[in-house]
Amino acid sequence: MTEARWLDEREFTMWRAFFYMRRDLERAIEAQLAAHDLSHADYTVLVVLSEIEGQVMRVKDLGTQIRWESSRLAHHLRRMESRGLICRSDSPDDRRGTLAALTPAGLRAIQEAAPGHVTAIRRCFVDLLTDEEIATITSISQRVSAAVAGPATDGATDPATDGATAGRG
Amino acid sequence: MTEARWLDEREFTMWRAFFYMRRDLERAIEAQLAAHDLSHADYTVLVVLSEIEGQVMRVKDLGTQIRWESSRLAHHLRRMESRGLICRSDSPDDRRGTLAALTPAGLRAIQEAAPGHVTAIRRCFVDLLTDEEIATITSISQRVSAAVAGPATDGATDPATDGATAGRG
Repeated sequence: MTEARWLDEREFTMWRAFFYMRRDLERAIEAQLAAHDLSHADYTVLVVLSEIEGQVMRVKDLGTQIRWESSRLAHHLRRMESRGLICRSDSPDDRRGTLAALTPAGLRAIQEAAPGHVTAIRRCFVDLLTDEEIATITSISQRVSAAVAGPATDGATDPATDGATAGRG
Repeated sequence: MTEARWLDEREFTMWRAFFYMRRDLERAIEAQLAAHDLSHADYTVLVVLSEIEGQVMRVKDLGTQIRWESSRLAHHLRRMESRGLICRSDSPDDRRGTLAALTPAGLRAIQEAAPGHVTAIRRCFVDLLTDEEIATITSISQRVSAAVAGPATDGATDPATDGATAGRG
């Protein structure tokens, strides 16, 4: 095996800090949402469904958008359905499988959780950054996603970037 | 309930891109480690144990360092023990609970996985950044962790920042 090009101290310090920051940030977000009996995974599903026309979409498309493996998503949606947050049905239009729809209870859940969620995002992340840093994070994030997952993930066609729902991501 | 200060379009674009980037990056790392029959969680535990004197530490301290809840960590360590990667024992010195130690198989696993792991980190993240961006990410990460988790998580006393093991995080 070829010897790897190890990280130098500056790169390693950055990677380690970034690694722990991701975890700390995720924990803070999970803790805030837990007060509303939601996980971040629940919230992610609810926000996508709440933003789309008719609040229903194919499970396959949902998985593509939020980048989940289909088995993980199917399992998670089953649990959300048992809690009344979404409901699933066969697609009447085609044979491309299952639809997931937001229920009134799911809509209420996200409406109640969203203000606290955006406040937590501001406190723990957004409001800590300068304008220049916001631009840098955007640029780096798009570059990394493009390198990892190909051009389809650059976010340019993401319907959720509609300004009217800003902050519910 | 007070109306939240929603994200503006620029902030929301950043948050959404950052959210998906974290997921894309994590998926790439998981995929690389899966080729070595390891999860990123396994790797994180193994790297911390491999870097510490004697390759053994208290489970409680391990949890503090990698920021896991104790129940999640206990569950994960049980599974890693059943696979022969670590072994657990009662601490002989005190009553502060369980020790976790790297096994020879665990050491071999991380030695085999580390070169590909650092190559993936470079390809998907580090090598995509300029020197200035590396400094910015370090600064933001430390700021966010400090804001979220308090001064104890600023990384200043993290033994794993030893340059000799750079890149195995």
